[in-house]
Amino acid sequence: MRIAFLIFDDLTVLDAIGPFEVLCRLPKAEVMMVGETRGIKRADPSSLGIAADYAISEVSSADILVVPGGRGQQQVQGRPPMLEWVRQIDATTQWTTSVCTGSLILGAAGLLKGRRATTHWGRLAKLGDFGAEPISERIVEDGKIITAAGVSAGIDMALHLARRVAGDTVAQAIQVGIEYDPQPPFDGCARRAPAPVLEMLAARYTVPARA
Amino acid sequence: MRIAFLIFDDLTVLDAIGPFEVLCRLPKAEVMMVGETRGIKRADPSSLGIAADYAISEVSSADILVVPGGRGQQQVQGRPPMLEWVRQIDATTQWTTSVCTGSLILGAAGLLKGRRATTHWGRLAKLGDFGAEPISERIVEDGKIITAAGVSAGIDMALHLARRVAGDTVAQAIQVGIEYDPQPPFDGCARRAPAPVLEMLAARYTVPARA
Repeated sequence: MRIAFLIFDDLTVLDAIGPFEVLCRLPKAEVMMVGETRGIKRADPSSLGIAADYAISEVSSADILVVPGGRGQQQVQGRPPMLEWVRQIDATTQWTTSVCTGSLILGAAGLLKGRRATTHWGRLAKLGDFGAEPISERIVEDGKIITAAGVSAGIDMALHLARRVAGDTVAQAIQVGIEYDPQPPFDGCARRAPAPVLEMLAARYTVPARA
Repeated sequence: MRIAFLIFDDLTVLDAIGPFEVLCRLPKAEVMMVGETRGIKRADPSSLGIAADYAISEVSSADILVVPGGRGQQQVQGRPPMLEWVRQIDATTQWTTSVCTGSLILGAAGLLKGRRATTHWGRLAKLGDFGAEPISERIVEDGKIITAAGVSAGIDMALHLARRVAGDTVAQAIQVGIEYDPQPPFDGCARRAPAPVLEMLAARYTVPARA
């Protein structure tokens, strides 16, 4: 089970590491962190560096592709070799997935035309630019493409995928192994968030109408 | 707000990255990834490398210390310079925290004597070796020391800490920003897990009596 993660500067690192922590525990998982070139990619913020051990020129297929998002996805959209690589790998995968605004990279690569898809709540409308139908759900599966909502949703997406790939017992063992029994202190839904919370987020995101 | 993460080979990377993604969003956060030496540390599994941009000799204080766990924590317990650094930094912090078996590093550094603390469900009894009182809860706060349960619990711990440090509105804005509105596919509690799930985990962990 060869699992390729596309990484790049200014990614939101939890987008990638949530799924990494789940999918690396699949039986016979072989994970590859793939950058346009090899070397350290700096997350957003840059105080975290992660290693791309492979360049896109060195990886020509995968069973699972995971595309994270973050501010850097806009630069990736402007890099034809990276978009071509995403298309090339997608042609070989069993599952092509994204987390957060990684779906905008899938969209820019032309993979979401006519498909239902999701992304971070603050970017949902953008999916329409790529011919996708924006869906406000935590995980959207359409054919072999699975898109997840913002950042932490990659953990749920990866467990969903683990279940698809390896069945319920393996997937639950992974969930129990990473003790994913969440107890968040607040309601994390943007549409239900109090006005002062949304005001704080408005500088960075398009805030939704309140539910 | 200077936030130091201790990183080392064979760490469980989500232990560190969950809190990173939360705490880096605190106002004026300055994050430092600190290794015994500078350079790439390889997670467990080694297909993920993260950069230690600082050596322990270069960091002498922090407002928040985060100590992750994973298989590599056993090696850290055998490295007196790293344990001495943990003690030295703890003497300067407002908050000293751990995720998963990172609490065993705090214990080995002598910081948990007589304190209530937690860790991954599969290692809970080990806390007694360091004079701590093992508590089966997701987050345990005792004085300025906050310990979290396994792996993914670091996200909840960091949001709890964000609330302590910056108040409810900021902490909820961080939670909504990372869209942490979890929808896990299974019950992630080890004590309630079905027998086949626990059997699958028994090779790696001490499985608990079922609830």
